[in-house]
Parts: sequence; C-alpha cells; structure tokens
Amino acid sequence: MSGEQELGVTESKEHNPGDWYAEVVQKANLADYAPMGGFIVTKPRGYALWEGIQDNLDAWFKETGAQNAYFPLFIPESYLEREKDIVEGFDPEVAWVTHGGHNELEERLAVRPTSESIIAPYMAKWVRSHRDLPLRLNQWCSVVRWEATDTKPFFRTKEFLWQEGHTAHESEDEAWDETMTRLDQYERLYTDVLAIPVLKGRKPDHDKFPGAHTTTTTEALMPDGKSVQGATSHYLGQSFAEAFDLTYTDEDEVEQVAHTTSWGLSWRALGALIMTHSDDQGLIVPPTIAQEQVVIVPIWNEDNREEVLDYAQAIADELDAGDIRVELDDRDERNPGFKYNEWELKGVPLRIEVGGYEVADEEVTLVHRPDGENVTEDNDDDLVETIEEHLDIIYDKLYATAEANLHENIREAENRNEILGTIGQHGGYVKTAWCGNESCETEIKDTISAEIVMVPLDRDEEPIGDTCAICGEAAHETAYFAKSY
Amino acid sequence: MSGEQELGVTESKEHNPGDWYAEVVQKANLADYAPMGGFIVTKPRGYALWEGIQDNLDAWFKETGAQNAYFPLFIPESYLEREKDIVEGFDPEVAWVTHGGHNELEERLAVRPTSESIIAPYMAKWVRSHRDLPLRLNQWCSVVRWEATDTKPFFRTKEFLWQEGHTAHESEDEAWDETMTRLDQYERLYTDVLAIPVLKGRKPDHDKFPGAHTTTTTEALMPDGKSVQGATSHYLGQSFAEAFDLTYTDEDEVEQVAHTTSWGLSWRALGALIMTHSDDQGLIVPPTIAQEQVVIVPIWNEDNREEVLDYAQAIADELDAGDIRVELDDRDERNPGFKYNEWELKGVPLRIEVGGYEVADEEVTLVHRPDGENVTEDNDDDLVETIEEHLDIIYDKLYATAEANLHENIREAENRNEILGTIGQHGGYVKTAWCGNESCETEIKDTISAEIVMVPLDRDEEPIGDTCAICGEAAHETAYFAKSY
Repeated sequence: MSGEQELGVTESKEHNPGDWYAEVVQKANLADYAPMGGFIVTKPRGYALWEGIQDNLDAWFKETGAQNAYFPLFIPESYLEREKDIVEGFDPEVAWVTHGGHNELEERLAVRPTSESIIAPYMAKWVRSHRDLPLRLNQWCSVVRWEATDTKPFFRTKEFLWQEGHTAHESEDEAWDETMTRLDQYERLYTDVLAIPVLKGRKPDHDKFPGAHTTTTTEALMPDGKSVQGATSHYLGQSFAEAFDLTYTDEDEVEQVAHTTSWGLSWRALGALIMTHSDDQGLIVPPTIAQEQVVIVPIWNEDNREEVLDYAQAIADELDAGDIRVELDDRDERNPGFKYNEWELKGVPLRIEVGGYEVADEEVTLVHRPDGENVTEDNDDDLVETIEEHLDIIYDKLYATAEANLHENIREAENRNEILGTIGQHGGYVKTAWCGNESCETEIKDTISAEIVMVPLDRDEEPIGDTCAICGEAAHETAYFAKSY
Repeated sequence: MSGEQELGVTESKEHNPGDWYAEVVQKANLADYAPMGGFIVTKPRGYALWEGIQDNLDAWFKETGAQNAYFPLFIPESYLEREKDIVEGFDPEVAWVTHGGHNELEERLAVRPTSESIIAPYMAKWVRSHRDLPLRLNQWCSVVRWEATDTKPFFRTKEFLWQEGHTAHESEDEAWDETMTRLDQYERLYTDVLAIPVLKGRKPDHDKFPGAHTTTTTEALMPDGKSVQGATSHYLGQSFAEAFDLTYTDEDEVEQVAHTTSWGLSWRALGALIMTHSDDQGLIVPPTIAQEQVVIVPIWNEDNREEVLDYAQAIADELDAGDIRVELDDRDERNPGFKYNEWELKGVPLRIEVGGYEVADEEVTLVHRPDGENVTEDNDDDLVETIEEHLDIIYDKLYATAEANLHENIREAENRNEILGTIGQHGGYVKTAWCGNESCETEIKDTISAEIVMVPLDRDEEPIGDTCAICGEAAHETAYFAKSY
C-alpha cells in the first residue's frame, strides 16, 4: 500500500481542520471512501485501532457481567413498530430490504439502525423469574442509519461499527447503577486508553434516545472547539419492557415489569482520537493502542552498516521480548529522513534512532512523536523499563494537552448575546442557566449552529443562574452549549 | 434464562438426528429461532463458542501476515456485475436494499453474500508495485444468502457469521501456497481445537466457487454419515484480478496481473462441533473452547455443609489461579442430581464431585462428560496438573471417537449400484473412479441425494480405477461421494 503515504499532509489542522482530518485519515491509511456516498472502507491500520478499543471495552464488559451474543442484521417492520418512539425516531433513517433473490418479500426488513426492537422480545422470552435477572447482553456489529448529512469518516457514516449493550433488571436502582457502570467504563476508555478527558452529563429531554427515560453521555472537546458525543448510556425505564412484555415473577411469585438499559460506543471514538492528538505531520496514536509503540530507525554509512543494524536488531529483540510492540525499519531503499516522515505520518508515538554514536556510547536516542522532544538514554539492562517510562510520559503529554484544551474552553454566559459571542469567538462549551424549553435551544441553534450537548447528570443540581439566559423565565438546569460533530 | 434448560433432551441422536440436533441447540442455550424464517439468534453460550474459534484462527491469521479490515455491508449492483461468474453464482441468493429512509435508491445495493466484488477494486487501488505484495486482508462479519432450503441453526441460515480472507500475490506459486496455508489452518482448527478429523480435497470443477480456478475444502464426517464442508480456500487464479484491474509493476517496471485467493470459515464449524460430539444427554464441548472446562458440584448434608463448601471453594480458587475455566455450582435450591443433568446438558467436559468422603480423604472424584468415566484423584499440590491431564484425556477421547467414525466410513465402490447401495446402507464416503463429467454425479444425486463432496488435492493423482464407475468411460480422478449438510 505504498504510493499514497509518500506525500505528507498538506492541509493545516488549525486553518482547515475538515480537510486536514480527511487527509490524515487517508494518508495514514486508516480508511478510504466507499463507492456509495456516506460509506467508508476501514483499512488495516484503522481497523487495528478499533480492535484496540474492542480489546479494552470487551474485557471490562465481561468482568462486569455482560455476555456477548449476536442478533439478526434484519428487523421485520412490524417489530420496529412495536415501540412507537423507536419507529418515529429511526423511520427516516432506515435502509429497507425488499427483495430476497428474485422475489419480493412479504414484509420489509429493516437493516438494524439499533437493536432494541429485536433484542427486547428475546429478553422477554428468556426471562421468567427474578433468578434470570439481571440479564446483560452485548453485541459488536455494524448498524445502518441513512443520514442525509455530509459524511466524515468515523464521525458520521451511513454504516458504522459499534457495540450495543442491552440489559434488564429487577429495580430502577439496579438499572440506573448499570447505566452509570457503562458510562464510567466509557469515561475510562477515553481517559485511560484514548488520552482524552471527557465530561459526563445527560442529554436534554428533547434530545434523548427515542423512548428512553434518561440518556447519559460522555462529551469530548476537540481542538477546533467542537464537542463529540463520545458514547451514550440510556436508562430506558419500563417503556421498552412494557412494549415488549419483558416481565418476571418476583420472590413472592408476583409478576413485575423489568427495568432496562442500553448503551453504545461507536467508531466515532476513532474520529475523536484522530482529531484530538494528530498534527500537521500526520496521525498521533497514544501508546495504549498504537499498532507499533516504537519504531527503530538505524542510521548507517558504508563503514558501519552491519554494526548499526546488529545493534538495532538487538534492541528490537529486547523490546519485543519485553512485550513492547516494536518495528525495526531496516529498509535499504529509504533514507532515515524519509522513514522519520513516514512513521510520523502513521502516528507511532516513540522513535528510537541509532547510529554510529549510539553504538559507540551504548546509548539510544529517543524522539517523542507529540512534541519532537529528543532524549538520549543508556542502552543498559533497564532498557525495557526506560522505554515503558517514555511511553507513559508520551501518554501523559497527550492527555495533558487535551485536558488543558478542555479546561480553557468551558466558559459561562449570562445572556443570549454572550452565548453567541463566546461560542462564535472561542468555540468550546458555554454553561448557562436554562429554563428547559427546547425553543430556547432552537433560537441559539438557528443563529449559530450550537446546541445543548448536555446538562448535569444530577437532576437536583441547582442551575448556575436563576433565570434562563435566553428567555428570562425561571431556570431549571445548567445547559452546556457547544457546536458538535 | 432458566426454564428452558430444566427439561433434558428428549430426542435420540441415533434415531432422529435432525430433531435431536435442534433440541440440543435450543436446550443448551446456544441459539434460538428468529422471527424471520431462516435466521437465528445466537445466545451467549453459542456466541462464546464462536469467540473461541475466532481467538484461535485470528491469532494464526495474524502470525501468517493477514491483517483485519472492514469493508461495507452493501455492494452496489454494478460492482457485483463486474465479475460475471460471481453475479451468476449469487444473483438468486442476494438480499436487496432498495430504499434508504423514505427514498428509493438510484441503484440497488446487495447485502454482501461474499465480498470479492467490493474488496478486489480496493486491492487494485492500493496495490501499485511488487513491494505492495503480498497483500493479505481478512474480515470477520456476517453475510446474507437468501437460500430457499430448510434452515438448520449454524449449518444453514440466511445470515451467517464467518471470516473471509482475500489476498493478492505476484505469482501463481505464491497464491497457491497461500491457498494451502489457509486450508492447513482450517484443518488445524478442526483437529486441534474442535476435536474433529477432516479430509482435505478439491471441489469438482463444476462445483467450484464462482470464478475460482480451484476450490479446496476440508470435509468432516458427521456421526449420521453425512459430510460437512468445514471451510474452503480458493485459488482464484487471475480472473478476479483481470475483472477488477488488480495489477502491479514488477521489478523490471513491467505491469503484471496479480494472482488472488479467498478463504472462509463460517459458523457451520459450530454445527459440526455440536453434531459430532454431543449425545442424548445434551451438548459436549471439547476443553479447548468450553466456556467452563470444569464444574465443581459439592454434595453436602446438614452436618458437613460448610466443610464441603469450603473444600470445594478452595479447589475452585486453585484451578482458577491455574488458568482453568472453572465454575463452582453452590446453589442451595438445587440437588446434585439436578446439577449433574444441567451441566451435562450444557456440555462441560469435566465434573468434579466433592462430598464428605472426598473431604476426609483429601481427594476429588472426576467424571468425564463424553463417556461418564469416573476417577478418584488426590487433591494434592499437583491438582492443576492432574486436571489438565484429564482435560487432555477427554479431548483425546472425543477426537478418537470422531476419527474412528471417519476411518470406518470411507469405502470404495466399483459401479453405480455399489455406490448407491453403500451410501444407502452405511452413509459415509464412497471413493470411486470418475470420468470428470457432472452428468455422472447428477445421476447419483437424483437417485440418492449424494454428491461428489471432493476429489484429491493433487490433480496428477491416479484415479483408483481405469473407468468411471457410473458411465464406464475413461476415469480421470477419484470422486468422494457422500450425502452432505
């Protein structure tokens, strides 16, 4: 897959973030555009990042009682219609299968836009008594939503990869705890794996998942000032259980309606990852999920080629034995400068340079991808540990930069013009007192395309002002306005 | 998910294998039927077996240069038409998406029945020079084939999970080596993970994958005498590369057409697993991929309840620390006999029984699931090793039974009536000399529903007779006739 990556990134992240993002995605070999508008092809280097996310989340899900399953790709139209909010919420976005082979189907089949309507009836069938609860199912799959808006690889595509968890519980408290457990795991993924701090909150009532009681969200702020909804965890209350007869007999043999949740994280997390850390040299991936954590570039001349290569190979072997994902770039046909550029474009977090001086002094020169910091270290018995420390430092650098961006860009506003002016000038989040009516959000949205991306998780939290910054009526909560992906 | 599994299997594997199979699948909680005919819902215990297969194969694929990727679920009709054999081969089986939201699409989209038509054009785009080869892509996904025949969970479903590998190479030799590497990995999966011996061979030319030069197969013989096509690996020659302009410049800067392969294994492997080892008590899973390798059932009375439970818990902790997947069934509300039946139904390969005698003598009683063999062993410092040895013995028992079935059921026949009589009486494989014409297979197929499931891999191998057993013309190869799933 040469050719494409031989030219570096030409667009500027600061001045033209949209084109820059598209260029990084393509030139770092993460994805390509599919023939159908709105679809992408995920290339091996992009898919490896998704596998990194899967490995982490899947292990945490299993440790906390979730079991993987697989439900059909198609949902009969009549099933989709059983929960009215679902059908109203997704109907405009559904891809419909109408023919199987040469025959028209008797009933249209929806390509799943989400699977509540097909999973809930089976949970209803499988659950009989309180001993069958909690029931926690998860599936890794793709879903299709026929969105009309512009495509952005990973951020917004008609088909996307995700996981969707679906659980049923005896009580509201248990279901709410489940909702929070999953939200906390999503936060952990962003914080501890993707090096991105997030805010946790709720969606305003008019922007909940169709049919949900409460939609909770993790929001990540991008360097261009826009917010990304990083994952959502829904407390569904009893509405789905009622629509699908998901009931159980309690300890006193009395029939009860279950409380359910659903929660999902999509490959949008990859979009946030790429957008947050990368720069005008290309992709930057944190060591946690980098396909190669370390690349070794040997620098030789005619006289010391074998010596330098042997030295580099020994280091590669040692790091490999120490479970560090390392690549030795010993290609003859490329010079070191070309290799630096290529591995920078691909986002490898740490480069080790070894040449005649390093061999002579038994040292290694380390270069941190995020800021180019250059450090010389001894190549002694502690090399694996030394490299691990540097990988941790690089992770912390990435996180610190993202955290500073978040902290600097949460501002408050007391009236309509302040909201518009602050977002217009700085982007980021603007906190303001809000009456709770969608019409006040609409007013801002129509003027500047910013919306309420979240309100505080705690419904009893006092708003930051007494009156709504937009209409002046009594305020009920604090709204976080932002432009969003 | 109680209730269903409380009743054991009622059908007989020997006398009614079809109904017995369906009952095991449902009562061992592997799968349920979907609302649309021909589709199934894969329950957690079924999906865990698929994950076991994935973990093994995926690691081997990666060790041998394959990279995972993800291509779109949909293929535009015009893409499907670019390779004429593909479109003719799959057209009657394609599910078509015609509407996105409320709008009719300009071009119909096929839900992928296999992905050559969408992957090959991208391989063509990504490959420019010989340095980009070999290119080895794999994806784990579901595909849809609108087959009209009866559904059998895992064996035959309109949607099924599989992996599909697609590779491009400089030479025919390399592509053929790739084809064999994958076939060998499939054989390894069956032999070393699923405890099922397989035969390796080629499909007759009239039964190749559409457009392929050679289709190789692993065939597994079921206890009911039918053959299962366990996985296929196709050497595609240059036909796909030509249809999709998959070319590269060689070392002399001359443009060449690549040689390609594709290879796939589906969840039919789970069908073969269930069918091969299980019995009238329910499922039997080899220790290699069993969700629980060991179940401990404590047997207590009023006087020694705490003592027995402590003893059982200590064993569970020790096995868990030794990386054995163990479950302690300490439910109060069920008696040991009920627990035995339930875990036998679920297929756990080894049961440990501990009661007053075992506590007093510092022993454990082990029961092998496949044959009920009962052994007492010391509960000493080597317990983990002892249990591992028994798990190996159980694996070997399962394999030996399947191997004996295979060896006893390969027979030869010299004429039409012998073929029909032998398959009619014994099932299994019947080897016979064959002229190579489909019409001779058709004659057998129409009479007894047996077909040629494979011919020898080696094209130069002499047939076992001089003349075709059916038509009497000169024989060109040895055909393996069998009824098949």
